[in-house]
Amino acid sequence: MNSELAGRILNKDKRAVARGITIVENSNSGSAQLLKQIYSDIGRAFRIGITGPPGAGKSTLTNQLTKFYRKQGKTVGIIAVDPTSPYTGGALLGDRVRMSEIGQDVGVYIRSMATRGSLGGLSKKAIDAADIIDAAGYDFIILETVGVGQSELDIAQAADTTIVVLVPESGDAVQAMKAGLMEIADFFVLNKSDRPGSNQAVSAIKTILMMRDHDASSWMPNIIQTVASENTGIEETAAEIQRHREYLTGTGSLNKKRELRTRLRIKEIVEDKLRTELWNNDRENSLNSSLGKVVLGNLSPYHIADEILENFRKQF
Amino acid sequence: MNSELAGRILNKDKRAVARGITIVENSNSGSAQLLKQIYSDIGRAFRIGITGPPGAGKSTLTNQLTKFYRKQGKTVGIIAVDPTSPYTGGALLGDRVRMSEIGQDVGVYIRSMATRGSLGGLSKKAIDAADIIDAAGYDFIILETVGVGQSELDIAQAADTTIVVLVPESGDAVQAMKAGLMEIADFFVLNKSDRPGSNQAVSAIKTILMMRDHDASSWMPNIIQTVASENTGIEETAAEIQRHREYLTGTGSLNKKRELRTRLRIKEIVEDKLRTELWNNDRENSLNSSLGKVVLGNLSPYHIADEILENFRKQF
Repeated sequence: MNSELAGRILNKDKRAVARGITIVENSNSGSAQLLKQIYSDIGRAFRIGITGPPGAGKSTLTNQLTKFYRKQGKTVGIIAVDPTSPYTGGALLGDRVRMSEIGQDVGVYIRSMATRGSLGGLSKKAIDAADIIDAAGYDFIILETVGVGQSELDIAQAADTTIVVLVPESGDAVQAMKAGLMEIADFFVLNKSDRPGSNQAVSAIKTILMMRDHDASSWMPNIIQTVASENTGIEETAAEIQRHREYLTGTGSLNKKRELRTRLRIKEIVEDKLRTELWNNDRENSLNSSLGKVVLGNLSPYHIADEILENFRKQF
Repeated sequence: MNSELAGRILNKDKRAVARGITIVENSNSGSAQLLKQIYSDIGRAFRIGITGPPGAGKSTLTNQLTKFYRKQGKTVGIIAVDPTSPYTGGALLGDRVRMSEIGQDVGVYIRSMATRGSLGGLSKKAIDAADIIDAAGYDFIILETVGVGQSELDIAQAADTTIVVLVPESGDAVQAMKAGLMEIADFFVLNKSDRPGSNQAVSAIKTILMMRDHDASSWMPNIIQTVASENTGIEETAAEIQRHREYLTGTGSLNKKRELRTRLRIKEIVEDKLRTELWNNDRENSLNSSLGKVVLGNLSPYHIADEILENFRKQF
């Protein structure tokens, strides 16, 4: 049945894509099998990561970019990763606007993935979902997430080009720079650039970019000014994506990036499998019955851990 | 030498505590040994988790609670966990105010832990740090973190009593409720309660609490109104902590909570060790040399993962 599903995904059947992503999202047993079946058909889509603070206009930028690509006859898959922080309440509303604007277009596939409580697993699942969309033949995949905590690092790992979206006010730029978003940005979009302070913000970003350690890389992140809600600067953003894409291809960095992504993924697969074997019913039970001894008595968790490991090694 | 360090920690030497936490923070090889040595001396401190949105006044509440406990002759260790989101810039300033207010007090130990890029590892390291402070004989340990993404769940795991701090304005309460902070709060502090909308916010929280699924537990989270900056409501907060502590002890839930924490920790120790054995130089190299085949050819990551696992099993 999965083999039939894989066939339907390769045939660009949107409902099959949706079902495939649900399978990887729930990490159910068919997941590895499905991904094996589609694996030879991925690698053609170009993956764009979009991150930034709440309210920077990431969804609007994504929508406008999508419309731009559609006019060029390209197809677009969108994965909106929502870490469901208690303090980013806009996701649902944004989704509704998005659906009414581009959701009905046959050349657009949109999927939201919520990740609360499984942040560590976000990268793998987002990559798996992107692989399914890739296998279905979409030209571009946009991975969009709010930049809080870990999620923006995961997105940078999953994307070929990463865009950090900022706005002029509130010192966002400087905060973002300090906190390490500089390393993941292939370029910056300064959205809402019709607001006061826009040019100063561009200068601030440039100044900080100049101070950073230059590595051997010849790529220098640009800053594109946009007003996404008025469709201003979208063409320039697409052009910058294209410029970065050509840089990646020309220098061999695209394959390098994808190798790193594959590396992370293989490690996750290996560790997941090992973890499943490790925590079988017997060892879960033996762990449970040891807990009381640790809490009440004086046996350290390190002693119990050693016992479990020894038992695990014996099985081979 | 570590054994000497353990002795100094048990003797309440602050510099030894600091060095011990640095050792667990860097996960260096002495870490397990040190924790084994102090393990029989932990379990006396009561652990309070404080989380909530940026700007809710978590640091101020922590400081006032600390002063309150100090007046009662109790000692307090504070672990400020900073997930270093690009959009929470206040940590440094808060730390400086804190240090000048209570940092010089011999009965107070303060430690900041930054966790960017290792969010998954936060829980373990914060628990290890709390264990060291516990072994040094502090009466209370306050774990404070901004509630974004995953960190507040980790804190709830590490604490005996978890306080969610909210403010009246901006619909924080409703957002927090929706996003699942309800499940981790043992009670709420509505800080800045002198602001407009305070009583409505309390009603909103109560309404949502009423709607939630009631489990067998007889504990119903309260809402304490405070103005931490004016020291209003601090005594009530401490009383509510005490009430929850007595509930936990009386129902046996404290041991249950600590068992769960220990369980998590043992699992992490086992998995860390296994991971270290797994990714030895040989297997890292063999992984690296397979990557090209995956990216360029059509070998799936799942095939490579199977090869690595087979090789790993052979070693036993």
